Amino acid sequence: MEKFKVTFCPDNKTIEVDSGKTILSASLSAGVYVNSSCGGDGVCGRCKVRVKKGQVVTQPSGRVSLEERKQGIYLACLTTIQSDLEVEILPESRLDLDKLTPQDLDLRLKGFYSEAEEIESPSSILGDEIFAHSPLATKLYLELPPPDLEDKISDLERLYRQIRRIQDIPIMQTGLANIRRLGALLRSADWKVTVTLGKRNGTTEVVFIEPGDTSHKNFGLCFDIGTTTISGQLVDLNTKKVMGTRATYNKQVTFGSDIITRIIFAQEQDGLERLHHAVIDGMNKMLQDLIQKQAIDLNDVNCVVCAGNTTMMHLLLRIDPTYLRREPYVPAVNFVPTIRAAEAGVKVNPRGLLFCSPGISSYVGGDITAGVLSCGLDKEEGLAILIDIGTNGEIVLGNKDFLISASASAGPAFEGSGVTCGMRASSGAIQKVEISPVDFKVAYETIGGVRPRGICGSGYIDIIAQMLGAGLLDKNGKIKIKDHKRIRDNEYGREFVVAFKEECDSTVDIVISEADIENIKRSKAAIYAAASELLRHMSLEFADVKKVFVAGGFGTYINIDNAKRIGLLPDLENSRFIFVGNSSLAGARSILLSYEAMKKANDIARKITYFELSVEPGYMDEYMAALFFPHTDLSKFPSIKL
Amino acid sequence: MEKFKVTFCPDNKTIEVDSGKTILSASLSAGVYVNSSCGGDGVCGRCKVRVKKGQVVTQPSGRVSLEERKQGIYLACLTTIQSDLEVEILPESRLDLDKLTPQDLDLRLKGFYSEAEEIESPSSILGDEIFAHSPLATKLYLELPPPDLEDKISDLERLYRQIRRIQDIPIMQTGLANIRRLGALLRSADWKVTVTLGKRNGTTEVVFIEPGDTSHKNFGLCFDIGTTTISGQLVDLNTKKVMGTRATYNKQVTFGSDIITRIIFAQEQDGLERLHHAVIDGMNKMLQDLIQKQAIDLNDVNCVVCAGNTTMMHLLLRIDPTYLRREPYVPAVNFVPTIRAAEAGVKVNPRGLLFCSPGISSYVGGDITAGVLSCGLDKEEGLAILIDIGTNGEIVLGNKDFLISASASAGPAFEGSGVTCGMRASSGAIQKVEISPVDFKVAYETIGGVRPRGICGSGYIDIIAQMLGAGLLDKNGKIKIKDHKRIRDNEYGREFVVAFKEECDSTVDIVISEADIENIKRSKAAIYAAASELLRHMSLEFADVKKVFVAGGFGTYINIDNAKRIGLLPDLENSRFIFVGNSSLAGARSILLSYEAMKKANDIARKITYFELSVEPGYMDEYMAALFFPHTDLSKFPSIKL
Repeated sequence: MEKFKVTFCPDNKTIEVDSGKTILSASLSAGVYVNSSCGGDGVCGRCKVRVKKGQVVTQPSGRVSLEERKQGIYLACLTTIQSDLEVEILPESRLDLDKLTPQDLDLRLKGFYSEAEEIESPSSILGDEIFAHSPLATKLYLELPPPDLEDKISDLERLYRQIRRIQDIPIMQTGLANIRRLGALLRSADWKVTVTLGKRNGTTEVVFIEPGDTSHKNFGLCFDIGTTTISGQLVDLNTKKVMGTRATYNKQVTFGSDIITRIIFAQEQDGLERLHHAVIDGMNKMLQDLIQKQAIDLNDVNCVVCAGNTTMMHLLLRIDPTYLRREPYVPAVNFVPTIRAAEAGVKVNPRGLLFCSPGISSYVGGDITAGVLSCGLDKEEGLAILIDIGTNGEIVLGNKDFLISASASAGPAFEGSGVTCGMRASSGAIQKVEISPVDFKVAYETIGGVRPRGICGSGYIDIIAQMLGAGLLDKNGKIKIKDHKRIRDNEYGREFVVAFKEECDSTVDIVISEADIENIKRSKAAIYAAASELLRHMSLEFADVKKVFVAGGFGTYINIDNAKRIGLLPDLENSRFIFVGNSSLAGARSILLSYEAMKKANDIARKITYFELSVEPGYMDEYMAALFFPHTDLSKFPSIKL
Repeated sequence: MEKFKVTFCPDNKTIEVDSGKTILSASLSAGVYVNSSCGGDGVCGRCKVRVKKGQVVTQPSGRVSLEERKQGIYLACLTTIQSDLEVEILPESRLDLDKLTPQDLDLRLKGFYSEAEEIESPSSILGDEIFAHSPLATKLYLELPPPDLEDKISDLERLYRQIRRIQDIPIMQTGLANIRRLGALLRSADWKVTVTLGKRNGTTEVVFIEPGDTSHKNFGLCFDIGTTTISGQLVDLNTKKVMGTRATYNKQVTFGSDIITRIIFAQEQDGLERLHHAVIDGMNKMLQDLIQKQAIDLNDVNCVVCAGNTTMMHLLLRIDPTYLRREPYVPAVNFVPTIRAAEAGVKVNPRGLLFCSPGISSYVGGDITAGVLSCGLDKEEGLAILIDIGTNGEIVLGNKDFLISASASAGPAFEGSGVTCGMRASSGAIQKVEISPVDFKVAYETIGGVRPRGICGSGYIDIIAQMLGAGLLDKNGKIKIKDHKRIRDNEYGREFVVAFKEECDSTVDIVISEADIENIKRSKAAIYAAASELLRHMSLEFADVKKVFVAGGFGTYINIDNAKRIGLLPDLENSRFIFVGNSSLAGARSILLSYEAMKKANDIARKITYFELSVEPGYMDEYMAALFFPHTDLSKFPSIKL
């Protein structure tokens, strides 16, 4: 087969590929990351590139305008390579995976807060404080009595005996690798050693043995593995201090922005391997960075706790996710046994342990268990609800007596995917918007204060709420006004210009189209309806809910009144809302720091019932009723002035 | 460095080696097995070869006579290669590792029996019968209810649930490898699978999952790993039937015949690796042979139980044995955790488990624990003693109330090592001897009924007892008669010809020298004194002992009266002796077939006290007193007519 050279700019990376491959496929091979929400199906229109030199064959797409085509702009996924090429990745298509600014990071971790509700300290998250400090890996410094003719028990039994003098551990185990090192180690260390003990599937393992006293060096990592973002923290397990925090995109996004696309990709040749490596590489890079910054030795990181949705956990562990999306939607495993981190490819101490927060079902994962744990939803006296807004929206309703969960296919609109100018909440995203009802003038703020590149979730909430307030939109989400420089009709319908390209770091105007509004409307309707239907199923209503924990990292500084105005959140007093940010990461950290929390997480996962919305006729009614701004039944939103 | 070609005959194997290497070292590299009891120290004189062509440099040795030197006969270990060579391994130096006859095998397994006491069935060994049948690996055929929207627990939880419907297993674990296969496996097998459950360190592991019903194919292996011989059995774990039995030399013998030599060798470059591979290769070859004969699939062998002395267990698991021979003589481990057989290199089902019978101390190992288990010594009402005669002699004294053990450096004389014409109990060994008190004519029987090649342990017992009876020996072991064609003096002292070379498959007469008799005397004194000292320590005496279990595979058809005559066994009625043969293998089989037996073995190992003879002044007195035939104190041997 003929081979061609493709050079990507501005990265200036060149790769040789077979003729007939798509530009998207070539970019993946070259390690150039291009936005692709649909996984290469030609649907999302996010992978626009400009072919500067060379021959291609492309398929027609409504996502590329005639004017764009004239400039050599195509969708990378629909365009095949016919000669040597020079290809430019357009600014809005670029995926700068490793360029999250510290500010982006902060936002992702805090999640989104209303201005009114912004919390200074994470006091609303129970987290680490309420569980006894008993980390999953502990270090014990031991001074063993050397053997003599009166005391000749074997080296391993001597070690066990000394450990048991300090802790009551009935079942202890250790691997052959440690036993092989033991004799020489104990003697060269003059019988003074530090053992790392790990909790493992109901027993305690001697994970590692080191000469001398290293008990002060005991670190762990917790990760929230999201469909879009991976967040991680390095924690001093002795002091509970968070030593560092990082977030990065999940590199799997290049194989599709949502779970379903990735599950399908996993079935391709090497697909599972590639998805697995994408997430593991990101974690390893992040943890390398964390430990280097703190001048910590890799071998002193003895355990890792991961929380993520069920698909992410399958891909992390290289378990075939196929059956997650086939009826009746069954995971291979919810309660993952504790394994060595190395078995998954996570590069900490080679004998270090990895624990996964237990999942509930195919579409309510260990991230939600961790979230419930960190919110303390399972301890609430009054009725409470956790709404986690991500690519999927997950809801948990309950209190100390019961817990029931559901998952709604919200779609990735709130994460900036599948909408014309959407982007993830990173530098250049329009995050906060006001629109003048007088002249429709738009005032906006971007993340990082830079020139806008697109719109993130919180920006969309503001824009729609403000358009409604300014009389620009009807309750169906149709743009009512015609004759204004910001409003125009094109082949896909009417759109509103949020920022003209002159103001932007973009080749096109940043707009919101009626199709985008429809998309957001469906997303918010799915989430609201899921919560409503869960309540209805339990013969309860929103008014009964004393606390609404809102979790997720999809946007930032959400304006709570705007969120109610569009009907994303229920019309309750602002004081009932508690924005908990990345509750999954907080829960994972609790587990890392406390065996009690780990057991509690297992209890919670067993306790949470999963309620399948898709087979519930009432859900569709609720969803249809929610496909308005804010809702068909305005009695549910009494505070909204129309 | 100059290279030379060395050709060994009769094997006709050629190898290229560096100049200056010893012939013994070259033979090891060529895979030609030469007797070497001392591990190449020039002491034992067992590695005689004849250099037929080429130049060598040799060191002087009292083990090689002037006449032999004239014929080009040297010790392979003391002779270095200076040119291309042709070397003949003399018949008495050959080690036909793979040529154990079925008869040899039978003998090795039965151990040695007095003619009077020969047992037809192993009824005197409690063994398998008394423990509940609950093998270390069990198979369960499961028909799982397929998931539906009402029953959506994960695949692994579904599997666990079904297992728990049949068995009450609180803590269950399974490895990632099984979880990765689970989804596709369950569905392609239409939810009908067989799980293999293994007992592992206090928990139960799902070892393996297979499609369909394979529950009838569940096999295990037990091994006795002796310093000299490895014996193994393939057992149907469902029916308890022994499917096949094999024995082979432990190929480690080429690195030295006793434990100490091997421990020293282990400290050399690659020494531990080579010793480890030697034993593992032997086991793998044996098990291959066993399963092929029975047309059994390797993957249906799910667990392995090994019993052996502490050094053998260290070498099996590739654990540095150095500290076993350094004061205060401490093993790395007595209670070896259950591991995967593959971790040790044993080639059964890659996920199969390996359990080692727990040891007691550096010189009383898991073979003795298994022996006590199979004899039921720990259940005896009356006082009993187990005497296991091998390269070391191990003694356990006790009953249901207490158990105390000791180890005596008997030396390998009873195994045919370190004595002029000694050989292991295999084809051509003189095993049974009568000497006429009239004309000192010798009547003998050999193993296999072939021409004699040497003398094994039971032969030596007979010869010395018969020489004493014929008035040839005084009670010190000195040959009293001079003028007889069978008696002659040479540079090493006086010797008695048992068989002239004309009758033999040997280039020299088969003799017993005063030095050999001294050697045997020391061995028997060490064993007898160890038993005496243990009794004295407990304020008991032989007369209190109701049962004497005699174990070991060093010879065959021992004549009990002769054994008493030389003072190896105490002078009790013949009815008190029970010859239990290879009690270590029997115990390993019990463990393989019963978790109860495994727990009992752990209890026994914990219960047995180890009594260190070497630091006990009384032991040396007992030993000195036993350095006579039968003993200085004849009142201990009232039945012996002098």
